Amino acid sequence: MERTEIASLYTQTPADGIEVKVYGWAKTVRDSKNIGFISLTDGSCYKPVQIVFEAAKLANYAEIAKSGLYTSFEVTGRLVLTPQAKQPFEINADTITVLGPCGPEYPLQKKRMSVEYLRTMPHLRPRTNTFNAAFRVRGEAAYALHSFFHENGFTYVHTPIFTGSDCEGAGEMFQVTTLDLNNVPKTEDGKVDYTKDFFKRQVNLTVSGQLEAEAMAMALGKVYTFGPTFRAEESYTPRHAAEFWMIEPEMAFADLNTYMDTAEAMIKYVIRHLLNTCPDELAFFNQFFDKGLVERLQLVESSEFGRISYTDAVEILKKNNDKFQYKVEWGTDIQTEHERYLTEQVFHKPVFVTDYPKEIKSFYMRMNDDGKTVAAADMLVPGIGELIGGSQREERLDVLTARMDELGMRRSDYEWYLDLRRFGSVKHAGYGLGFERLIMYVTGIPNIRDVLPFPRTCGGF
Amino acid sequence: MERTEIASLYTQTPADGIEVKVYGWAKTVRDSKNIGFISLTDGSCYKPVQIVFEAAKLANYAEIAKSGLYTSFEVTGRLVLTPQAKQPFEINADTITVLGPCGPEYPLQKKRMSVEYLRTMPHLRPRTNTFNAAFRVRGEAAYALHSFFHENGFTYVHTPIFTGSDCEGAGEMFQVTTLDLNNVPKTEDGKVDYTKDFFKRQVNLTVSGQLEAEAMAMALGKVYTFGPTFRAEESYTPRHAAEFWMIEPEMAFADLNTYMDTAEAMIKYVIRHLLNTCPDELAFFNQFFDKGLVERLQLVESSEFGRISYTDAVEILKKNNDKFQYKVEWGTDIQTEHERYLTEQVFHKPVFVTDYPKEIKSFYMRMNDDGKTVAAADMLVPGIGELIGGSQREERLDVLTARMDELGMRRSDYEWYLDLRRFGSVKHAGYGLGFERLIMYVTGIPNIRDVLPFPRTCGGF
Repeated sequence: MERTEIASLYTQTPADGIEVKVYGWAKTVRDSKNIGFISLTDGSCYKPVQIVFEAAKLANYAEIAKSGLYTSFEVTGRLVLTPQAKQPFEINADTITVLGPCGPEYPLQKKRMSVEYLRTMPHLRPRTNTFNAAFRVRGEAAYALHSFFHENGFTYVHTPIFTGSDCEGAGEMFQVTTLDLNNVPKTEDGKVDYTKDFFKRQVNLTVSGQLEAEAMAMALGKVYTFGPTFRAEESYTPRHAAEFWMIEPEMAFADLNTYMDTAEAMIKYVIRHLLNTCPDELAFFNQFFDKGLVERLQLVESSEFGRISYTDAVEILKKNNDKFQYKVEWGTDIQTEHERYLTEQVFHKPVFVTDYPKEIKSFYMRMNDDGKTVAAADMLVPGIGELIGGSQREERLDVLTARMDELGMRRSDYEWYLDLRRFGSVKHAGYGLGFERLIMYVTGIPNIRDVLPFPRTCGGF
Repeated sequence: MERTEIASLYTQTPADGIEVKVYGWAKTVRDSKNIGFISLTDGSCYKPVQIVFEAAKLANYAEIAKSGLYTSFEVTGRLVLTPQAKQPFEINADTITVLGPCGPEYPLQKKRMSVEYLRTMPHLRPRTNTFNAAFRVRGEAAYALHSFFHENGFTYVHTPIFTGSDCEGAGEMFQVTTLDLNNVPKTEDGKVDYTKDFFKRQVNLTVSGQLEAEAMAMALGKVYTFGPTFRAEESYTPRHAAEFWMIEPEMAFADLNTYMDTAEAMIKYVIRHLLNTCPDELAFFNQFFDKGLVERLQLVESSEFGRISYTDAVEILKKNNDKFQYKVEWGTDIQTEHERYLTEQVFHKPVFVTDYPKEIKSFYMRMNDDGKTVAAADMLVPGIGELIGGSQREERLDVLTARMDELGMRRSDYEWYLDLRRFGSVKHAGYGLGFERLIMYVTGIPNIRDVLPFPRTCGGF
């Protein structure tokens, strides 16, 4: 008999009495005197299927009934529709075979385990409800992003991981080398001899693919990256990882409004996709992590995002400075507490804050006519604060180089980037979305370590 | 007036005489005495649109007519259907505005440039026909892969880039560090003091996500990775890069045949998608890179792949040893020349070679009952040889540990991997596809440096 995946039992339920064969792992095994129940999952969907087995039919009843959690089974039996029960059907077993036993030494027993404990077992924790749901949602969200961009004419591009430059002058980078650190070759003046290294130069891991994405957009029109990004920040917060995934769209012939329209449509698209494809997973998170989750996602999906200038936002925040740890005035960077106040207390929905002072934003952002602010915007969402940052890019060669000089940047490091302004420059815009932050947002999981399959954070793994 | 993307002129051509506004870059500008022609692209599709402009209508005719290649323009005008011409329509300009000039110092002039020369300008080469087509095909192929796996119930997982282990003992890895190489901290016995490094241990870049993907498959059933992978091989061939992208599917409750069926369906799916979505790009490659390309892709898409055991393949190859540089006998690894002979001369279509001697394959591959061969299979395709390698994985704890001992592997490095066999082990299988090799295969581009947007290869970038 052909194997049936459990997912297809739910999507195309066979008629009552049809014989099926399923494989799976036991989430629970209950023995109720000559009748037993296995909650069986095979990973094809979040929901398990209930297997009913009887001593009267199974010679190996006793063996099966004492099987440990996560024993793997092959089951043949008849599908029984159960319209009165919570689950729509169950399988009444004719045969059950143990594929792989799982004994009492299995570390994931039924008692409630802390996420901290589970982090010590990244290879096993996807088997728990929480992590299984998290990684399913992660996979579906990634797919939704690819679909959104594909439907909207964006080309997926791979920007390099190895880089000789540093997009934002952030400085917190990992170095990559094949030199023997026990015996680093040196030049005559005692410096590292990089001619002996793999690339004959110092190489770091990328902190952003934006600049390269801009180059691709100048030929492909609309592009996006989706790849790993690295920050060597000594940060122990629940929101920072050393290795994380970023989405960085870049659009030619686009301005700040194009970016905001696109980012808003993208977030709504992803949420809509998740509400449609992961209702069981979201219901789980709504029950155990964040009672307001599904309602908040529905609100975001259906509301028109607000837009307010930084200057106007600061006016509102200043009136409420008594509520904040960090007091706000024009020119200061706004913190998470202010962001959340704006989106949760003022707008009650997502909001873009636009046109920040140039001093608190990056060199490549387009200077506004006032000479003081740049065409940047952050998307703030209830429950988390900033989810997306983006801007129109400075496409004017003279303005860009003047700004770089002002900041003391070395032009020779950016000649290729300046070429994009020398040869057929066009207005363009883009943004960055931290993928893990999105997953935390749509699941309510508060720690980035729990939305990354194998988290790499400061201090070790 | 709203901007129209050139792609939508082709997919939803407006009626004759409708006024449109387009943006784009000039691929050519021709001045034919008071009437001029611009071949304009905006990146939204591979095909440009022809702009016709007349001195009688444009006050700035002279300026436009002398514009350099890749000048960017805003054009308004009326769409004119041209059923007699090669292109189905053109735009008769009412106004043309230069957005960004591009002068004679632009390095990509119209004369034919070598790919070697273009490699020195990775930020500009996507503007050429070859690279524009290559990166479009790359993006569509990536999307097709995501779609294939999503449709077939696989969950996309991100396996870690930072790793403490080495999947296949290959050894050629990049090290990642935040230590100051000019002044590496040492312990009392003179070794590198890794307690001072970011992760408090030695960390390398991944060479494969397979082992972690196996852990995910034991909870999610069917998973795949799609991410960057790194090899510090001192290899200057046209087929090796230090940074490349891999797809690694892993399936629980699967055997060697499941892998082969899935890989065959996947390749056909991707090729079908490209034939449908990139006909212009493939026609370009067929004309300029490989006259047999489209025919070969159609053949692969429509044929049932062959399957032959290594032992039987060696019998065939031995009879033809006079044709080969490396002579074949049972036990030797087969080389590209043999692979190509099998797929091109013997089968005339893709073929899986199965059940290789255990000595030439990896420790995790499932031992066959003969004790000599393992349940591995390579997919060979005409024109290139091996495209995919995969295997059923050894799910039996005792057989796996015996094999690891035989190979002198340190068990303590793999305890977590062995846990997958201790707790609910099931038969499973998976494979690896080098994404760049796929793109080379479907475009006919012979050098990996030309299918990676920003190639990182041995010796520098």
